[in-house]
Amino acid sequence: MIARAPDELLAEASAGSRTALARLITYVESGGSNQRETVSRAYGSSAPFVVGLTGPPGAGKSTLTDQLIKTALASGSFDGSDAFDQIGVLCVDPSSPFTGGAILGDRIRMQDHATNDHVFIRSMATRGHLGGLSLAVPDAIRVLGAAGFSVVFVETVGVGQMEVDIASAADTTVVVTNPGWGDAMQANKAGLLEVADIFVINKADRAGLRETRRDLEQMLDLGTTKDPRPPILETIASTGAGTEELWRAIIEHRRLVTGIQHDQHRQTQARAELDRVLSVMVRARIAELADGLAYADQVAALVAGETDPYRAAETLLAEA
Amino acid sequence: MIARAPDELLAEASAGSRTALARLITYVESGGSNQRETVSRAYGSSAPFVVGLTGPPGAGKSTLTDQLIKTALASGSFDGSDAFDQIGVLCVDPSSPFTGGAILGDRIRMQDHATNDHVFIRSMATRGHLGGLSLAVPDAIRVLGAAGFSVVFVETVGVGQMEVDIASAADTTVVVTNPGWGDAMQANKAGLLEVADIFVINKADRAGLRETRRDLEQMLDLGTTKDPRPPILETIASTGAGTEELWRAIIEHRRLVTGIQHDQHRQTQARAELDRVLSVMVRARIAELADGLAYADQVAALVAGETDPYRAAETLLAEA
Repeated sequence: MIARAPDELLAEASAGSRTALARLITYVESGGSNQRETVSRAYGSSAPFVVGLTGPPGAGKSTLTDQLIKTALASGSFDGSDAFDQIGVLCVDPSSPFTGGAILGDRIRMQDHATNDHVFIRSMATRGHLGGLSLAVPDAIRVLGAAGFSVVFVETVGVGQMEVDIASAADTTVVVTNPGWGDAMQANKAGLLEVADIFVINKADRAGLRETRRDLEQMLDLGTTKDPRPPILETIASTGAGTEELWRAIIEHRRLVTGIQHDQHRQTQARAELDRVLSVMVRARIAELADGLAYADQVAALVAGETDPYRAAETLLAEA
Repeated sequence: MIARAPDELLAEASAGSRTALARLITYVESGGSNQRETVSRAYGSSAPFVVGLTGPPGAGKSTLTDQLIKTALASGSFDGSDAFDQIGVLCVDPSSPFTGGAILGDRIRMQDHATNDHVFIRSMATRGHLGGLSLAVPDAIRVLGAAGFSVVFVETVGVGQMEVDIASAADTTVVVTNPGWGDAMQANKAGLLEVADIFVINKADRAGLRETRRDLEQMLDLGTTKDPRPPILETIASTGAGTEELWRAIIEHRRLVTGIQHDQHRQTQARAELDRVLSVMVRARIAELADGLAYADQVAALVAGETDPYRAAETLLAEA
């Protein structure tokens, strides 16, 4: 199979070809020259509105996304100023080899939309290259934007460094929790506070709702630096209860970041884009170093107690 | 106050001065020339045996450490081959401003030992410099080693990047869970599997023990790459139940890493030491870049849509 040129594929994707779109996203996952050309062209178009949804497996992110898609297609931005008629969904689960079953189930549920011309769903995987998804997901968002998608939902699991990197590509990040999750949230507090623009307690008909809301409020009292303070909403995604209110809160946040905070938001995003790439390029340089003879020599000197790690690192960086 | 020279302080610390030891650890927390000289001298001594304990606040890590100290002082390595008569404890909680109360309570409980000449306890904090604790904790471990401590316990919260960095400095890492924590563990699965050599279900007299053990076994079935497979132990730290068995499991793991896996273990640790420092130095270089005019220019070009982040990063790195 001959690799098709990114510009041709972008033209086809914009004209509605899902095959072309899927190929372009494979390019940005895989790295190499096609990735660079794809990205270079995609960043010329304006970015879509990006909604991040993050939370552990089983929190109900996919069911919630499903409901939000329905609401977004039906109601747009409520005031008629925006119709969201092309919706992308990117699903990221670095641990998916372990939870293949659950993911598959969620994806199948989402297929209702996949038969729908307005929705494009894609699970993203690392192709083994360093920092892969931290870049591939933001790049795929840009590809969707260039292909005419006005909204992209990005589902991630947890709040590790990679997820925080990915969240920095979102305009509005929704953290999905469930009743009874005090301990789980406590352990990830710093990460949650960093990324969350909106908290959702999904499965709000379950026991422990009041305690979880109280824990979240306390966490926000003590630690949030966000302005405005992230609201805490309640949903039952399986019935759709609360999902319209959630979409309203998302649209409200969007007004803020595309309105009075627009310039600052765009600056912050540009810095995040640049820092992500810088960080991955620099890590790649370290990995190259680690393959070299000089690195092996320094490790041997460390094992022998002949140097300390600072001196060893300086020696390597001076040679890099 | 005149800053005392690291070599003098190290001599005093080795002779038993806790004031000198505390000063040296402040040096490695603070960065600067005293840090470098301290580290350079400390890495000349052999490293102590390092036991990592990680788990969310409230899991009972401090109470467990307390019990393990008693057992270690009383039983050594059981077979008489090692007496552990100087025990260090480093407590790391990046979110401590939020949980000051709980930490303080734990520290006070630990003071039983603090009056004991055999135990040195220290809470470590970032002093605001980039990647601080990722380096300061491994450096403090080396300082304790140089001062004659044969075992160091390191308590951390969660499994973010910093904690994984710190865990790479431990010989044996114990992940502390409680009954009923299926969801919390699920969210951090990848991180937990990466660091855990031993799992403990503390507060094992509470409801949900069987489900938590089943969840852990499943997680290990699907995802562990450790050899041997991490055992799952049960403790009730408040009464001491199970803590001797836990210490036996730790000693067993120690035999492995100092025995048949010794060379490989030492290589892995030297690489981890080097990579931690490389990574922090490189991050510092990016932060320097981000203060420069060239960086501001590239951000402006990104905002204007005149470049893409890859091109911008390459331009900056070429100038760095």
